[in-house]
Amino acid sequence: MRFLGVDVGGTSTRAVVVATDGEVLGHGAAGSGNPTASGVEAAAAAIAAAGADAIAQAGVTVDDVVLGVAGIAGAGGSPGARLRAALPAAGLTVTMHFEGDLLAAFCSGSLERSGYVLVSGTGAVAARVVAGRLDDVRDGLGWLLGDRGSGFWIGRRVVRRALAALDQRLEWSPLVDLLLAELGVDGEEEPRAAGRSYALHEVTDRLYRLRPADLARFAPLAFTAAAHGDVESSAIIGEAATELALTLRGVLGTGLDDPNGLDGPIVLGGSILSGQPSMVAAVMAQLADVTEVVTVSDGIVGAAVLALRHGGVDVDRDVRDRIRSSLDRLR
Amino acid sequence: MRFLGVDVGGTSTRAVVVATDGEVLGHGAAGSGNPTASGVEAAAAAIAAAGADAIAQAGVTVDDVVLGVAGIAGAGGSPGARLRAALPAAGLTVTMHFEGDLLAAFCSGSLERSGYVLVSGTGAVAARVVAGRLDDVRDGLGWLLGDRGSGFWIGRRVVRRALAALDQRLEWSPLVDLLLAELGVDGEEEPRAAGRSYALHEVTDRLYRLRPADLARFAPLAFTAAAHGDVESSAIIGEAATELALTLRGVLGTGLDDPNGLDGPIVLGGSILSGQPSMVAAVMAQLADVTEVVTVSDGIVGAAVLALRHGGVDVDRDVRDRIRSSLDRLR
Repeated sequence: MRFLGVDVGGTSTRAVVVATDGEVLGHGAAGSGNPTASGVEAAAAAIAAAGADAIAQAGVTVDDVVLGVAGIAGAGGSPGARLRAALPAAGLTVTMHFEGDLLAAFCSGSLERSGYVLVSGTGAVAARVVAGRLDDVRDGLGWLLGDRGSGFWIGRRVVRRALAALDQRLEWSPLVDLLLAELGVDGEEEPRAAGRSYALHEVTDRLYRLRPADLARFAPLAFTAAAHGDVESSAIIGEAATELALTLRGVLGTGLDDPNGLDGPIVLGGSILSGQPSMVAAVMAQLADVTEVVTVSDGIVGAAVLALRHGGVDVDRDVRDRIRSSLDRLR
Repeated sequence: MRFLGVDVGGTSTRAVVVATDGEVLGHGAAGSGNPTASGVEAAAAAIAAAGADAIAQAGVTVDDVVLGVAGIAGAGGSPGARLRAALPAAGLTVTMHFEGDLLAAFCSGSLERSGYVLVSGTGAVAARVVAGRLDDVRDGLGWLLGDRGSGFWIGRRVVRRALAALDQRLEWSPLVDLLLAELGVDGEEEPRAAGRSYALHEVTDRLYRLRPADLARFAPLAFTAAAHGDVESSAIIGEAATELALTLRGVLGTGLDDPNGLDGPIVLGGSILSGQPSMVAAVMAQLADVTEVVTVSDGIVGAAVLALRHGGVDVDRDVRDRIRSSLDRLR
């Protein structure tokens, strides 16, 4: 039997075809499959394209695939329902089950049925998982209203700090040079127009052409500057870690004070946690009683685990390890 | 001779027909005339509609109007050029000159040719005016990248603080009750869905349906809560005042330290400064060497002054006072 696992993200979508023993037979990728960020039609097209690629690489047909699971943010809401309805028209006729992307991330890192997961990518959110379901959630309120400690949260501070320097409000910062280089804007030439420098005009124009959430793209500049000794960037990262620790503590509940309360492993995911070891260290430093975490780079392994479980397969450590190793060989 | 003055804002647009002696003969209003916020077509339609209303109320025809001046943000940029080109097709055939909305706000409060202006409405910006032109500008970088101390800046903090309470991240706050009442959401019933309360779901859904800049609508809640003793809201207002004082200080330059440097009056405008006396007091408290400011509610008087000046009229105090008093009678 063949199963389809899909990890749906706001930036990219990944899909795998997996066999009962955990062997990943095919892998596919496409752009944003998030219906809130990209619209239902575009999201359905991305999921279908990633799924079709995976099925083709596996050398099977749609009819060989028993069922699929997609891990996706807001799976239970109305965009999720409309997205599922749009999938067959987009070409994906496999019976699909939707699970939270948080649950997929958790299952990428742990086979336990209960535990905790904290994700900081473009957004930031934490959940307590109980008996294979999301029991309690903190933050994940989006770039405008929450997502404290996320890539957007950091990236927004990076660009505002750099612009404050270009606006002669605050002193120069290494973030200015990093931002100008990232955007390809020349900061040397400074003819003034309407009381502002050319660089300030140009940078603001370019940033407003992005989607707001795309400011997450500038979060790595803070880590680069901090690694070179920029104290302000270290402070931004430290504040983000404080926010993320607070988000996680919300779902840990009384666990940290109560030896019987903390039940299950803690999985960390998202590009800010999986790609920046200094952020994991900073979050852990604020959760002194947490001694062990598992870090995962995405939810695709977890989506495959969930698909197998939906198909009645008991996923043990061997099967999970086979998913990981065979996927690593394919991509 | 008759002149047209237009004060173009992101929320509303006001127009007046004014005679050489300063008598306002007609007044009109329409929605947002800002091409960045609303698009060039809609902005041109709003300006033309406000102008047509003012001309009709004045009992004159377009041909009686010698020229017009519109005070508008980003008047010198390419949206401004496209907007001006779109006005005749929208029905406004008067020869229009565009000036910065900051200059119109300044001229609403002062007849001096040089001085300073600080505006905090939806956005926040300050300028030094030299010889009737904007010489230097600080902030005004928009809701995403700057506008520190603006209505958006305050409103964003209000909703994020309230949501952090609804998300059980921070303790309850009077801002929660004020926000729920403002949005008409019932906070009592709390069935949970996907690990979140109903109120949290509902409030985030409604807020994401707004344009981001519309969060400025919630800024007054901070002033209400502060007036009832909420320390956190007072802190938000105090931080906004610090940001606004820093913005203004940028254009005051060395003026405050140098008795010859501070040259001309300081005009304060925008809904946050004209509508909240406590904010003016808080900003003034941080600029101890500034003893006098003029507060204006909008830029329409200044737009009329600029239109008369463009027509060669020497606008003295009598003419300006007549603009103010006759406009007050009309609206």
